This record gives sequence, C-alpha cells and structure tokens, in this order.
Amino acid sequence: MSEQAKYLVNCWYVAALASEVDAGGLFQRRILGTSVLIYRLQSGQPVALQDRCPHRFAPLSRGIRHGDEVTCQYHGLRFDGGGRCVHSPHGDGSIPRAAQVRSFPLVERDGFLWIWPGNPALADPALIMDGAVLSRNPPASVAHTYMHNAVNYELLADNIMDLTHIDHLHGPLINTRGKLSPLIPKVSEESDGIRIRWDWQADPAMLLLATHLAEPESPARQFFEVKWHAPANMRLNVGAMQAGEDYHSDGVVLYDFHIMTPETDTTTHYFFASTRNYRMDDGGYNAAKMQGMIEAFTTEDKPLIEAQQQEMQSTDLWALQPVLLSSDAGAVRVRRRLRALIEAEQQVCAA
Amino acid sequence: MSEQAKYLVNCWYVAALASEVDAGGLFQRRILGTSVLIYRLQSGQPVALQDRCPHRFAPLSRGIRHGDEVTCQYHGLRFDGGGRCVHSPHGDGSIPRAAQVRSFPLVERDGFLWIWPGNPALADPALIMDGAVLSRNPPASVAHTYMHNAVNYELLADNIMDLTHIDHLHGPLINTRGKLSPLIPKVSEESDGIRIRWDWQADPAMLLLATHLAEPESPARQFFEVKWHAPANMRLNVGAMQAGEDYHSDGVVLYDFHIMTPETDTTTHYFFASTRNYRMDDGGYNAAKMQGMIEAFTTEDKPLIEAQQQEMQSTDLWALQPVLLSSDAGAVRVRRRLRALIEAEQQVCAA
Amino acid sequence: MSEQAKYLVNCWYVAALASEVDAGGLFQRRILGTSVLIYRLQSGQPVALQDRCPHRFAPLSRGIRHGDEVTCQYHGLRFDGGGRCVHSPHGDGSIPRAAQVRSFPLVERDGFLWIWPGNPALADPALIMDGAVLSRNPPASVAHTYMHNAVNYELLADNIMDLTHIDHLHGPLINTRGKLSPLIPKVSEESDGIRIRWDWQADPAMLLLATHLAEPESPARQFFEVKWHAPANMRLNVGAMQAGEDYHSDGVVLYDFHIMTPETDTTTHYFFASTRNYRMDDGGYNAAKMQGMIEAFTTEDKPLIEAQQQEMQSTDLWALQPVLLSSDAGAVRVRRRLRALIEAEQQVCAA
Repeated sequence: MSEQAKYLVNCWYVAALASEVDAGGLFQRRILGTSVLIYRLQSGQPVALQDRCPHRFAPLSRGIRHGDEVTCQYHGLRFDGGGRCVHSPHGDGSIPRAAQVRSFPLVERDGFLWIWPGNPALADPALIMDGAVLSRNPPASVAHTYMHNAVNYELLADNIMDLTHIDHLHGPLINTRGKLSPLIPKVSEESDGIRIRWDWQADPAMLLLATHLAEPESPARQFFEVKWHAPANMRLNVGAMQAGEDYHSDGVVLYDFHIMTPETDTTTHYFFASTRNYRMDDGGYNAAKMQGMIEAFTTEDKPLIEAQQQEMQSTDLWALQPVLLSSDAGAVRVRRRLRALIEAEQQVCAA
Repeated sequence: MSEQAKYLVNCWYVAALASEVDAGGLFQRRILGTSVLIYRLQSGQPVALQDRCPHRFAPLSRGIRHGDEVTCQYHGLRFDGGGRCVHSPHGDGSIPRAAQVRSFPLVERDGFLWIWPGNPALADPALIMDGAVLSRNPPASVAHTYMHNAVNYELLADNIMDLTHIDHLHGPLINTRGKLSPLIPKVSEESDGIRIRWDWQADPAMLLLATHLAEPESPARQFFEVKWHAPANMRLNVGAMQAGEDYHSDGVVLYDFHIMTPETDTTTHYFFASTRNYRMDDGGYNAAKMQGMIEAFTTEDKPLIEAQQQEMQSTDLWALQPVLLSSDAGAVRVRRRLRALIEAEQQVCAA
Repeated sequence: MSEQAKYLVNCWYVAALASEVDAGGLFQRRILGTSVLIYRLQSGQPVALQDRCPHRFAPLSRGIRHGDEVTCQYHGLRFDGGGRCVHSPHGDGSIPRAAQVRSFPLVERDGFLWIWPGNPALADPALIMDGAVLSRNPPASVAHTYMHNAVNYELLADNIMDLTHIDHLHGPLINTRGKLSPLIPKVSEESDGIRIRWDWQADPAMLLLATHLAEPESPARQFFEVKWHAPANMRLNVGAMQAGEDYHSDGVVLYDFHIMTPETDTTTHYFFASTRNYRMDDGGYNAAKMQGMIEAFTTEDKPLIEAQQQEMQSTDLWALQPVLLSSDAGAVRVRRRLRALIEAEQQVCAA
C-alpha cells in the first residue's frame, strides 16, 4: 500500500459490497492509496490483486478475462487469480520470476468483500467483525449501500462514535429531541474494540421506531450501542421497548453497520448495511428505510463532514487542539486505540 | 491567519461590502487564508468570527442563528457575537474554558465592512482610509461592487499604481490616447501611504469625462491621482477641467476606490466603489457607469492579469527580475513599503 | 526552460505543425515547461520567443501584431521577431538594456516547426531528423496531425519502441495476429539514434497493407523498422511485399513519424505524420487513413497509456522496478541513451 505507514494494514477492511462485483467483470477500487482489482473466479469466489501489471504498470482492470485469468491489455501478460503470471506471448514464452502481481486475502461474508492489506499469513477470517445477523435475517429485512466521501476516514468514525450529533444535525425522524447530549455514555475498552452505549427514557420514542411499538405515542426505553473494531468498522444497535425486559425479544431493534475504508488520506469508501427485528418480510419498507438513510446521510452528514475536513485542511485532529466535550469519550478512545495499533504495527515492521 | 507570516496583519482590510451581509444570514469569506464568518447582530452591527467551531472545526457559517447567537450545526455548541461559547448541550452543560471562537474587530464604514486580522488591541478605526465621500455624496452618485480574481493581490495593486496600462489595454472611453506613458509621474512618500499623480493636457479629455465638460471637444487639463494605503487600499481621483483653477469646484472628478484583500496567496477579493461630482442625482447614469467599469475590468484587466499570474508561476515578482520602466515608480515604492511594514511587524512579533 | 534539468535541451523538438501557425496570428504552446510564442514574419518565416514580456511577464501571445513586431498588451513594449525591444512608450522612450525576450532557434521543415531549447550556438539544422519523404511525396499522400496526452513523453516513446503492443491493444486492421511478440527484434545502436526492426512471414499481411498487395489473401513478408532520435523523435517504416527483393520498389511501405515533445513532466505534445509508396495521389484514401490512425490512437493507445501514467504516479520507471520482456529491448536502450545524453549535457553545463 503506497501510504502504508499511515494505516493499520494487518486488519480486515471492506473493499466492496459483494453485489458490486459481478460474475464476469473486472472491478477496480483504490484502497489505502493502492489501486486494487477484484473479480470473481468462475466458481464465484472473489479474488483481489494489485491493479497493475508488473511489466509496465498498466491497470489489469483494463484487461481481458479468460476464464479465471486476466490478460493485460497492453502487452498480453496473463495472470491467474493468485497473481501468478501464467502466460507470456513474448520471445520464447518464458516467464520472468518477478512477473507476479501482488494478491490480497479476500473473504466474502455478510454481503461484504473483506480485504487484508497487510501480511497474508496473518489474515485470519475469524477476525472479521460479526455481521452474521445480515446473513441470518430474511433478505427483505437486509440492505447494503456504498457512498463515497471526500473526508479522512477517522472523521467518519468520529461521527458514529459521537451520536449526539443526531440531535443537532438531523430531523425528528431519527433524533432524540435533546435526550442524548446531556447523557454521559458508558464507554468500555474491550479486547477486540471499544463499546459505547447510551440509555434513556424517551417520550415518545424516536419516530423511526415509535411507529413500530405497541403504543407509538407512549414513553419507551431506548438505547444506542456502538461497537467499534479497528480500523473503522462499527456496528450500531438502536433499540426501543415499552414492556419487556429484553429488548431483543420484546422491543424493536435496528442492527446497523457503518464501515469506513480509506481510499486516500482525504477520501473514504463508506459501506453501510442494516437489518432489524420487526417487519422483517416487508421489502418495500426495507427499500424505503435504506433510501431514507442514504438521503439523510447525503444531505445532512456528508456536506457537514466534508466542510469540516475542508476547514481542518489537515487529517491531524490533535494538531488543531480540539476542545473536547463529554460526548467525545468514545471517539477519543477509538482514535487513541487506533493510533496505538498502528504504532505497534510499525514497530513490528521496523524490528 | 494561516498564512499570517506573509501578510500585514495589523491593518484594516475590507472583508465584504456592507450590502453583502444581510440582516438574518451567515456570510462566509476566506480572508488571508482564514475562513471568516460575518453576520449582523439584531442591532444591525456586524461581527466577524473565525468560521470554525473550536470543538470539531465544523464551519459555524453552516450553523443556525438564534438572535445574536450562532449554534454549531454539528454538536450544538452556541456562541455569541464575540465568539464566547454561551451554551453547551453536553453532559452537565459546563462550558470548557477553551471553547472560544476567535473574533475579529469589524467596522462598517462607507459601504464596506473593515476587518483587522492582527492584534485587536491595535485596531484603531481612525486608521481606516478616508472614504467619507462615499457616505457624503447622494446615493444616486455612489456605487460599490465586488469581483473575485485568481491572482495575488499585489499584482492588482500594481495595476492601479501604474495607470499607463489604460492606453494599451483599454479602449478610447477611458484611455488617454497615449498621453500618459511619456509622463514621469510625481510620486510622494507620505506617512500613511504613497501618492502618485499624472497631469496632462488632453485634446479632448478622455471620453468618459469629456461629455460632461462645458466644451466636450475642446482641450482640457486632466489628472490621475492615486493614494495607496497599506496593504492594498487605494483611492483614485480622475479629473478634467477646462476653465477653473480648482478642479473640485470647476471640473468633473471621479472618486474611485480600488481595494484588494487577499483570499489566498493567489486569489484576491477586489472591492470597487465610485462616486463623482457631476450628474450626482442620476441613478441611471450611475448604474450604467458601474456596469461599464465591471465590463472593462472583467474583459480587459482580469484576463490579462490572471494570465500574467499564470505565466509568473510565483508571487515573488523580484525573483523574476522584472525590467522596470518609468511608469513603475509608484508600484515599486508600494511593494517596498509593504514589504518593510510586513518585516517590521514580523520583528515585533518575534521580539 | 523552467524544468531544464530534466530535459535534453541541446536538440531539436517539434514545437508545432507548420499548419498550426497561420500568417497573422500569435500561436502559444508550452514546451519543456516554458510557454513559447510562435508567429510568422511577413516573409512567412516563423519565429519563436519566450511568451513573457520581460517587464511584467504578461504573455506576449495576448499582444498585438504590428508587421513583424509584437506589442505587449499590458504596457505597450514592442518586440521584433528576435525578441529585441524596439519601442517603449514610457518616459523618454529609452529602452532598458535588459528588455530582451528570449528567442529560440526555429526551423520549418517537412511540415513541422522544429525548436531548439538549448544553446542557440549549437542549433545546427543538419541535426534535424530526416523527414524529406514528407516533402518529396505528393501532397495527397502526406498527412500531419497533433494530439495532446496526459502522460510523460517517455511512456509514449516506449509505446513506439515496443510495437508488440499492437497485437494486444489494437484490432485486426493494424495488428499482426500474434506474429510480433515471439520475435526477438534486432536492435542497433547508431551514432545518431537507435534502430529496432522486426521481420516476419505474414499470412496474409496486416489488413491495412494486404489490400494494396497484388494478392491480398496470400502470404507476404513484413517488417517494422523504427529509428529513434533523441529525445523522442521516431520514424516508423511498415512494409509488406510478396514478390520483389527490395521492399521500397516492389512492396507497399508506410513512412510514419511519431514525434513527442514534453509540455510538462506529465503532459506531452504528440506530432504524427505519415506518407506511403502506394495510392500516392488518392487524397480521399489519405484522409481516411489519417482519420483511422487518430481514432485508433485516441480510443486504444491514449486511454491505456494515460491509465498507465496514473497508476505509476511517477515518471521514474526504474524506481518502480518493472519486469522486463524481450520486447523491451528497444525501449530500454532508448531510455538509457536519453539519460546518458541528459547527464552528459548537465555535466557540460556544470563544468
């Protein structure tokens, strides 16, 4: 990765939605500064290669598929899904030993293609964050989307780790009407990430959920819980319940996934997926809810955060000496944990 | 100011036309590299703040007005017109001591909003250049405009300090038909700026003025006089007279203001205002004259000066070793004076 | 030249097609990072000056022609075709000794305007590559064109020096259906450049030529021969013959010229000309053939090479450690020769 030193590399990033990579095509995306080619073998298994021929650096994504192989459009070297050069039309056809394209571990799971930019020997699929609910739930209750943003990925992670912003930036469908900001959220350092949770009494619940409760206009208990995994893979559960003790069985719950992958230092791939425990067979509701989320993000979060990035003219938040509030507790710990992980990784590399 | 070292900061710049900042809005403009929010208190008094929330650096100009206060759109901190944080919705509502937005002295005068980017304690409104004629004259004889240019501000100041360009760049309405270039202008160093003056015998006067003289086709005496004030605030008087000794009483005179404020090193806010001592109640003439000036600048000066900046690929004129002509006398002294003022200011800051 | 250290300067570059510079106009083009004005004296002779007035660096190409002279649009200095200032309207009209625009040796030959960016004393027209066939052949068999590319010029030279790409990038009209890549081309180091040649048995010949042979569907002998001259001036002969020994008299031959001139480090002026030894009086065929070449280059080579440049994010091929193939033999020698010439020139300059 060309800007490797800045990023955590021994971890799983989402490279693409599974639906973005079709059976026959050659899909290209820049990840951590490196251009990556993703395509599916005839078995359907997706593979990821650096998107450059080792001969003259033409992008292989401009090449031609031959079964499981890709031929470079410029001088005809052919590579298999592991990046090995399997054919050269030049001279006696001998293949230079260095004619090898870098290949990345890639796992398809829960509607995402997970890529490991670091040492392949360390790429354990068990380390991928738990998104099983996306696979387990009925398709009519599950939706995925992708959005491109002109900001550093850590600013997008901050946005999820400090959910108080919803009361100031968003409208009544998804805000808490001022309930959130006065709370001191519970933040827990866990071995595989950081958890932040807000619980409050709502009267009534946020509109998005209230209409699915037994008594939409009556008080409800609510919670937000975000679990962050390095580098910027977050699951956000949003719940409301009126009677039962256990929110999973008695309340209404959204299971949202906010996953950010750096394209470059100041541009980010934002992958979002969502499912829920109510109206799980209502595909029309499902589509409308996703459309509403995209619209809210695109017209409210995205312009604000891109303006924030423009104003910062830097990706180094601390250098600007931000004034911190109680609501920053989760975001600050996430930034510190990520920095520590990157530094630890750099020391291992340097050792 | 982010590029502070390059600019004179302890002086008045025009930040905006008074008419650009309306009663209810939040007006944003980048000045000397820093994004500034300008708005009017309910009293009508304008205030200027750095356009960044000290929490997460969202632009406050995207915020919401509450009376004299502005609430940040991202996490709801609220600031008064002096930049003090007056409300935090977070936790127990305590306000961090550092939650203070930088505020700039701002004075509304003569149709301009004057900003002082340096030490507020030194911001004496008496130092603002004299534009009283713009306030004193009948409104039908006064006009202001604003133009954005992709050039360093000193190139625009050079353009006014060397008026010989009008005979080569402009048409017969405002040129002198070759009278100006052969003259050696009188340049005077004054305590508060630099003055340059050309006097000549015209036959007839420049067309813009000739039609307002008693005998449009007869000879006239003419003059141009520019008074420069740091950093790039200039008043240009243009006169023609046929009989009287004193041009103010007997001739026709334009009182023009050419004021340049750096946006960045290579982009400039150009503020222009004009009044006169003839047809002072003719609003139609007033509008047409301003329109003509804008058109001449936009189609003749601006493309040439932007091309000059492109060709220079630098803002350091001296590094390119320009060949100097007699007509550069004023511009060169202005550049030297400005450099000396900036250096003196830097030494004070360093001491 | 502003980026002089990177380029060979004591050599001839094509600055423009002769047809691009008309009788009355002022033609501007950036060459090796420097903006150049080219115009024709009243005699028709073209001249080249740096496109900046030495006074305030306005582009002279925005000026006004007066016979053989050009007047700067900004303050009226006037220059002759050799760059000497011949008139100043300022003060007493004396002309500062330094008021001299840099002038470049310029030669019109074979439909090109050849410029010498280095020491004028060394500019020997005898060093211009031989393109006499373009002048000698009937006009209906000769065509020239110009194309702009967002790539470093050496990548475009590589493209011609390794013609095996045609079998992978281009269609059947101009490819060899796989004949070329297995060949080991003959590469010759010559005093004035580098020659590379491929000979093969075709069955039938490439379609572009086959239709002009006596027996279009029968086997033919074919060759490609490229002669490179520094810095990136190449002549490519393409031949096919069925009976005769001497291809010039008996076969069909294309005489193509591929000439690249750096605009900047990552943008290039591509000049192409072509003539032939068949259907030499068929202007319709001539125009259609040129149109086909432009279309093939624009839709096939150009996007691939621009993508290659984007992927490289550098102009230093060797730093990326390319895997080399037998087909790189010519391109690699050209790159090495050019580097040696540039280094030798730098040492002379430093001595």
